[in-house]
Amino acid sequence: MAKKEVDTGITVKKSDDFSEWYTQLVQKAELGDVRYNIKGLVVYMPWATKSIKKMYKLTEDILERKGHEPLIMPSLIPESNFKLEGEHVKGFAPEVFWVTEHGAGEKFEEKMALRPTSETALYQMYSLWIRSYKDLPFKRYQSCQVWRYEGKMTRPFFRGREFHWIEAHDVFATEKEALAQVKEDMETTKETLLEKFAIPFIFFQRPQWDKFAGAVNTYAADALMGSGKVLQLPSTHMLGQNFSKPFNVKFVDEKSEEKLAYITCYGPAISRIYGAMIALHGDDKGLVLPWDVAPKQIVIVPILFTDGKEEVLKKANELKEKLAGYDVILDERDQTPGWKFNYWEMKGVPIRIEIGPKDMQNKSVVVFRRDLGEKKQVKEADLLKEIKEIEKTFTANLIKKSEKNFEGNVIDAKTKKDVENAIKNNKIARVNFCSLEIDGEKCAEIIEKELEANVRGKRIDKEEKASGNCVICGKKATAVTYIAKSY
Amino acid sequence: MAKKEVDTGITVKKSDDFSEWYTQLVQKAELGDVRYNIKGLVVYMPWATKSIKKMYKLTEDILERKGHEPLIMPSLIPESNFKLEGEHVKGFAPEVFWVTEHGAGEKFEEKMALRPTSETALYQMYSLWIRSYKDLPFKRYQSCQVWRYEGKMTRPFFRGREFHWIEAHDVFATEKEALAQVKEDMETTKETLLEKFAIPFIFFQRPQWDKFAGAVNTYAADALMGSGKVLQLPSTHMLGQNFSKPFNVKFVDEKSEEKLAYITCYGPAISRIYGAMIALHGDDKGLVLPWDVAPKQIVIVPILFTDGKEEVLKKANELKEKLAGYDVILDERDQTPGWKFNYWEMKGVPIRIEIGPKDMQNKSVVVFRRDLGEKKQVKEADLLKEIKEIEKTFTANLIKKSEKNFEGNVIDAKTKKDVENAIKNNKIARVNFCSLEIDGEKCAEIIEKELEANVRGKRIDKEEKASGNCVICGKKATAVTYIAKSY
Repeated sequence: MAKKEVDTGITVKKSDDFSEWYTQLVQKAELGDVRYNIKGLVVYMPWATKSIKKMYKLTEDILERKGHEPLIMPSLIPESNFKLEGEHVKGFAPEVFWVTEHGAGEKFEEKMALRPTSETALYQMYSLWIRSYKDLPFKRYQSCQVWRYEGKMTRPFFRGREFHWIEAHDVFATEKEALAQVKEDMETTKETLLEKFAIPFIFFQRPQWDKFAGAVNTYAADALMGSGKVLQLPSTHMLGQNFSKPFNVKFVDEKSEEKLAYITCYGPAISRIYGAMIALHGDDKGLVLPWDVAPKQIVIVPILFTDGKEEVLKKANELKEKLAGYDVILDERDQTPGWKFNYWEMKGVPIRIEIGPKDMQNKSVVVFRRDLGEKKQVKEADLLKEIKEIEKTFTANLIKKSEKNFEGNVIDAKTKKDVENAIKNNKIARVNFCSLEIDGEKCAEIIEKELEANVRGKRIDKEEKASGNCVICGKKATAVTYIAKSY
Repeated sequence: MAKKEVDTGITVKKSDDFSEWYTQLVQKAELGDVRYNIKGLVVYMPWATKSIKKMYKLTEDILERKGHEPLIMPSLIPESNFKLEGEHVKGFAPEVFWVTEHGAGEKFEEKMALRPTSETALYQMYSLWIRSYKDLPFKRYQSCQVWRYEGKMTRPFFRGREFHWIEAHDVFATEKEALAQVKEDMETTKETLLEKFAIPFIFFQRPQWDKFAGAVNTYAADALMGSGKVLQLPSTHMLGQNFSKPFNVKFVDEKSEEKLAYITCYGPAISRIYGAMIALHGDDKGLVLPWDVAPKQIVIVPILFTDGKEEVLKKANELKEKLAGYDVILDERDQTPGWKFNYWEMKGVPIRIEIGPKDMQNKSVVVFRRDLGEKKQVKEADLLKEIKEIEKTFTANLIKKSEKNFEGNVIDAKTKKDVENAIKNNKIARVNFCSLEIDGEKCAEIIEKELEANVRGKRIDKEEKASGNCVICGKKATAVTYIAKSY
């Protein structure tokens, strides 16, 4: 199990070279293996898979509590379905993997897309399932993978050609209810992304030129990463009636009139959120994992000498049993304590308990917190209390740390030069902007070309009034927007 | 939510027309929808998805307890990998879905298989990960879907072109350890298939002509279905060194010598097991679900009259809270009690609690068990005790019922005519047979052609000595085998 790489640790500082740091983190903490022989496809190793499973469970439980029911869709979509909504196909067609044949090269009559997202698979079923206003709201989700032939550089978990997500698709009788769902999705994002994964974010309404293909509006959470770039995390889309029409998603209302339904969809990309989470919290010693997603929350390292070895191991096993309510591992491998300390710090286990002969004499143990990097002597009798205290404060502490980092990174920029400086210094620029409707796209293109940054949209958690003129074209500003580099 | 179909119930008897009964069950209990517009691909509806998720969790927990670690593999396999093991490609190539292009028809340099199984994806990684005897045993599993272009008739859950399974792939230094893993897999099958899903089975070593493509030996559990046919459920394969060689899965042993590893793989097809489970336990009123896989274990149906309506609803809510440790639903919908009884019997909920004004006067409730179809008056004070008793006996009762059914279905057949009669009467024939090595295939072909039945192999849970002559060719028998129709 112990691999050579773990011995060595990460050889660059995160602050010096984020990209190389991340690559080494993924390799040395044994999270992903990029050596699979298809470009852009990565193997998720056990340590990452276990966290990802916990993240799925946390998110699914919240969705179900809010009235979503799970289902499983086929992963193939006939080309004719896929083409039914014009904007959607324009947006996604370049990214589709196509299944064209089977067996010894027999061609299918119609080629099939590996789903890049499931609207065009699901909504034909919705048109069969939904008949009356009594069936609404109709809320379903599935946990699955999607495939997108990304042109950009891929990076394990962050961006890949196959990634793992949840997609929730909800149907309503009115636009108002659909908009309320968008708010509920934002709340769900807060409950998971912030409260469980400790990733602070800003929720934006995207500019019209940057919305989901086929949507009326796209709302997305942008997290600020250690590198100063933002990463789009869960996004929720108001599809309005754009898909209901071609897919015939109708219902009969109280007055027996047939109406087109309103649809929203929400897509937390769990594997990508995992990437954001390890990138944000990790440090030069390796992973730092929030409490609820750590595969192991506590590691017990016995400090063994030839004398009293058995007593220490016995005590270590006792402690393990005492902590049975947590995910605990007792590391009995034939390695030095120092090697094990490094190993489990690389793995991001929140708490390390050290127990040796001296500790036993004192009826105490050493407790190490991965987030603070601090050791502390704790009386054995107080151990459970101490662990409970850390459980309560661990993720909260990560949130506090990340939020502090996040806030300092938003800079008000008055001029294009200010924006340029902000971006250069790995900050997010807040600016007055001409328009987030389609006529603002030209200014956005200038920003993209000259500053290699993007217009992220309008905050929706609070109102920010525009004043003065657009930082780019100088026309009267109609919106406050944020500009940042993005993954 | 309530669909028209549920009102009507299943219109054929299971014993009269199993096939039609199953089709109606899947539709009327809202388990799967076959109207998706790609042949052989089915939508799994919420009620089925929830049970399938529980089945995954139960199986994964056992695998992890036995030392397997989860991982997630890419679902695409380059053609060149896929072709590395000659027998494997021969067996699977006819069933492969091929991804050949992306975007607007750009061809990939090399086409890629949608995994029909993951040996040829995984073992190239194993050759990178496994170096020394210290890395062994090396046990990994993934929960995923696989795609197989099946020529045969498809049937929801039983056989489809995309199905959902777990595959565990384990590597060992010696053949002996690999064989011990096969035994462990059989035990895992017993812990899940029999003890949790209440499906009795016989574990066979398959004849040489019917093994997994590339395996040295295949061991598989055959369940006897209501229709008299058997269904292959979890199978475990001794791959020996067949894949280690082309994929270079080697390790350095204690003497610093490089050796080829032994590999086993185990593939419980969860969605197919779900199909078997509902087919086996279901009756003319609908589903009967074992306790641990029922999405809801208890439904409370309030019996409401205009008088005292609120008191009854209040009491029903109290009961729900009292039973919070279980998956409980209180059905407050605006439908008659009788309609609700039918609805939840169709859904296979193990326990129904009825509470009305009269029950309230008596401080009692009515408890209905779905497996026995029996109602019983229970004092409210005894309710929790009663539920615990049912929890303990529910699945056990299903097992007993199924086992009884199973045992009576194996018939000793002395002649080909006996075999024919057994098969005609939906039984399994136990016979003396010339050989389960490749030279017995001719007799098996006769059975397949003339009786439309298959030779299932040799039992491995107990030794059965051959005596006399082969029921087909009359040569001296070397094995006792079982002959049955199969899905």
